[in-house]
Amino acid sequence: MNQLHPLYFFIDLAGTFAFAISGAEAARQKGLDIFGIAVLAFAVACGGGIIRDVCIGAIPPAGLSDWHYLVTAIAASIITITLQPLVKLLNRPVIFFDALGLALFAVSGARKTLSMGYNNEVAILLGMITAVGGGILRDIMLARVPVVLEKEVYASAALLGAAVVTFGTWWGWAGDAVFLAGFLSSFALRLLAIQFHWQLPAFKDRKG
Amino acid sequence: MNQLHPLYFFIDLAGTFAFAISGAEAARQKGLDIFGIAVLAFAVACGGGIIRDVCIGAIPPAGLSDWHYLVTAIAASIITITLQPLVKLLNRPVIFFDALGLALFAVSGARKTLSMGYNNEVAILLGMITAVGGGILRDIMLARVPVVLEKEVYASAALLGAAVVTFGTWWGWAGDAVFLAGFLSSFALRLLAIQFHWQLPAFKDRKG
Amino acid sequence: MNQLHPLYFFIDLAGTFAFAISGAEAARQKGLDIFGIAVLAFAVACGGGIIRDVCIGAIPPAGLSDWHYLVTAIAASIITITLQPLVKLLNRPVIFFDALGLALFAVSGARKTLSMGYNNEVAILLGMITAVGGGILRDIMLARVPVVLEKEVYASAALLGAAVVTFGTWWGWAGDAVFLAGFLSSFALRLLAIQFHWQLPAFKDRKG
Repeated sequence: MNQLHPLYFFIDLAGTFAFAISGAEAARQKGLDIFGIAVLAFAVACGGGIIRDVCIGAIPPAGLSDWHYLVTAIAASIITITLQPLVKLLNRPVIFFDALGLALFAVSGARKTLSMGYNNEVAILLGMITAVGGGILRDIMLARVPVVLEKEVYASAALLGAAVVTFGTWWGWAGDAVFLAGFLSSFALRLLAIQFHWQLPAFKDRKG
Repeated sequence: MNQLHPLYFFIDLAGTFAFAISGAEAARQKGLDIFGIAVLAFAVACGGGIIRDVCIGAIPPAGLSDWHYLVTAIAASIITITLQPLVKLLNRPVIFFDALGLALFAVSGARKTLSMGYNNEVAILLGMITAVGGGILRDIMLARVPVVLEKEVYASAALLGAAVVTFGTWWGWAGDAVFLAGFLSSFALRLLAIQFHWQLPAFKDRKG
Repeated sequence: MNQLHPLYFFIDLAGTFAFAISGAEAARQKGLDIFGIAVLAFAVACGGGIIRDVCIGAIPPAGLSDWHYLVTAIAASIITITLQPLVKLLNRPVIFFDALGLALFAVSGARKTLSMGYNNEVAILLGMITAVGGGILRDIMLARVPVVLEKEVYASAALLGAAVVTFGTWWGWAGDAVFLAGFLSSFALRLLAIQFHWQLPAFKDRKG
C-alpha cells in the first residue's frame, strides 16, 4: 500500500488490528494456548488476503511477506491476553474498526485484482473473499459454522464495496472517487446493519 | 470448455448445477441466510476446480473468471429457496446429475492437468480433487466430517475416472475415446454404488 | 530432496510416514472408510507442503507430483488398517517419528522458501506451516479444533526450527550447520515438551 495516501495505510492497519482482535478473542474464549491465539489472530487478519493473492498469482502473498501484518496480529494477541478489561471496553470500537476493515479489505482486494488485469467477476469475488475469508478461516479452525454466512448483513457489505469499486473502475471514474465510493457504501451498509439489526432471510425448515 | 463439443458444455453446466443444488440445500437446512446459501452453492460447484487451478498455476481459476459457473450457482440457490417442492421432487434427478457432475469433473480435471504438461500422479490426484473438493469444502464450512470420506463409493468413482483418462492418454488412445472411457466408467461405478448401496469398509473400534 | 544426503531422504520419508500414520489412525477412529483413511493420511503427510508450494509458486506442489509421498501415505494407511496391534505397539515410535517429521518439515520448508529468494518472514512462516499445516487440515476435516493449537509445545517447536534455519542462513552459516542447528533445536524442544508435558499458557475465562 506504499504508494497510497498515508490515511489508507492507517485504515489498513486499523482494520487488520480489529480483525486480529476478533480472532485472538475467539481463540482465547475457546481455550487455545498463547500460540493458538496468535495463529487465529493472524489467520483472521491475513487469511482473506492470502487466498486472494494465491488466486491472482501475487506470490508470495503480502500477508506472509509484509511484516506490518504479522506485527499487528501479534500486538492484537498480546493486548487480548494481557488487557482483557480493555478488550471488553473496546467491544464497541472493535465492531467499528471491524466494519472499517471489512470495507477497506473489500475495496483494496478488488483494486489489487483489477490492477493485475483480471476481469470484473474475479475482482468482485476476490474483493469479497479478501474481506470475509479470514473470518471464515477463523470459524473453520474453531470447528463452527462461519458466522459470516449467517450474521447480520456482513459479507453482503463486502460484496457491495467490491462491486462499486469494480463497476466504478469499469465506468472510468477517477481512482480516488472509486475508492471512496466503494469504501463508504460498504462501511455505511455494515454500520446500518449493525445499528438496525438487519438480517438476510433464512429458509430453514420449521420444526413441527 | 469452449473448444469441446457442445454436449460436453451442457454436461458441465448440468453437473455444476447439481453440485450447486447440493450446497444450497445443505446450507438452507443448516439455517444459513440467503447469502450463505449462495456461498455454499458456489463453493460446492467451483471449489474443487479452484483448488485444481491454484495447484497447476491456471491463474485466475476458471471458477472465479467464467460467469457461467457463478450464474449457475446463483440460479441453483434461487431455485432451492423458492421452489422447495421442486427440489424435493428433483431429489432423484439431483442424485443423477450429481453423479454426472462427479464423473465429468474428474475427467475434465485430469485432462486439464495433463494438458498443462504435468505428470500422471498430479493428473489423477487433481482430477479426483476437482470432483470431490467442492463437497469437502461444503462439509468443512458446515462444521461436519465430509460425507465424501464416509459415503458409498464416491471419491473412488472420481478416482477411477481420473485414472482411466490419465492412463488412456498415457497409452495414446484418441482424445474422444479417453474422455468417453473415463466418463462412463466413473459414472457407471457411481450409479451402481447408489443402486446397490456399495460401501467401502471402515475399521472403527467397536464399543464394548 | 534428491541433491541432499541420503540420510535426509530417509528422515523425510520417516517423518512423512509418521505424519501419515497419525492421519490414518485419526480417520480410522472416527469411522471413515478405507478411502477416507487414505485421504487423511495423505492430507497430514503432504498438506503442509502443498500449502507452502502454492504460496511460493512451486507449481505443481511436490506433494502431488512426487510419488514417494503418495506411496508412503498409502503404505501407512494399509498398516493402520491391517496391523492395529503393531500401530498400538508403535505408539511411542510414532510420537518419536512425528517429532522427527515436525523438525525436518520445518527446516526443509524454510530452506525451500529461502532458496526461491523470498524474505525471512516468509521463510519462517512457511517453514512452520509446512510442519503443522497437515495436522491442522486433518483436524479441520474431522470437524474438531486443531490440537496443534492447544497441545504441548508443538507448533512452537516448528517455529523454532524454521527461525534457526532462517537466521542461520541470514548470518551466513554453512548449509549443513544451518540444517543441523535448525533440526536439532526443533527436535530437542519437541522431545523435551513431550517428556515434561510442557504446555503454553491458555487464558480461557473461568466458569464461576
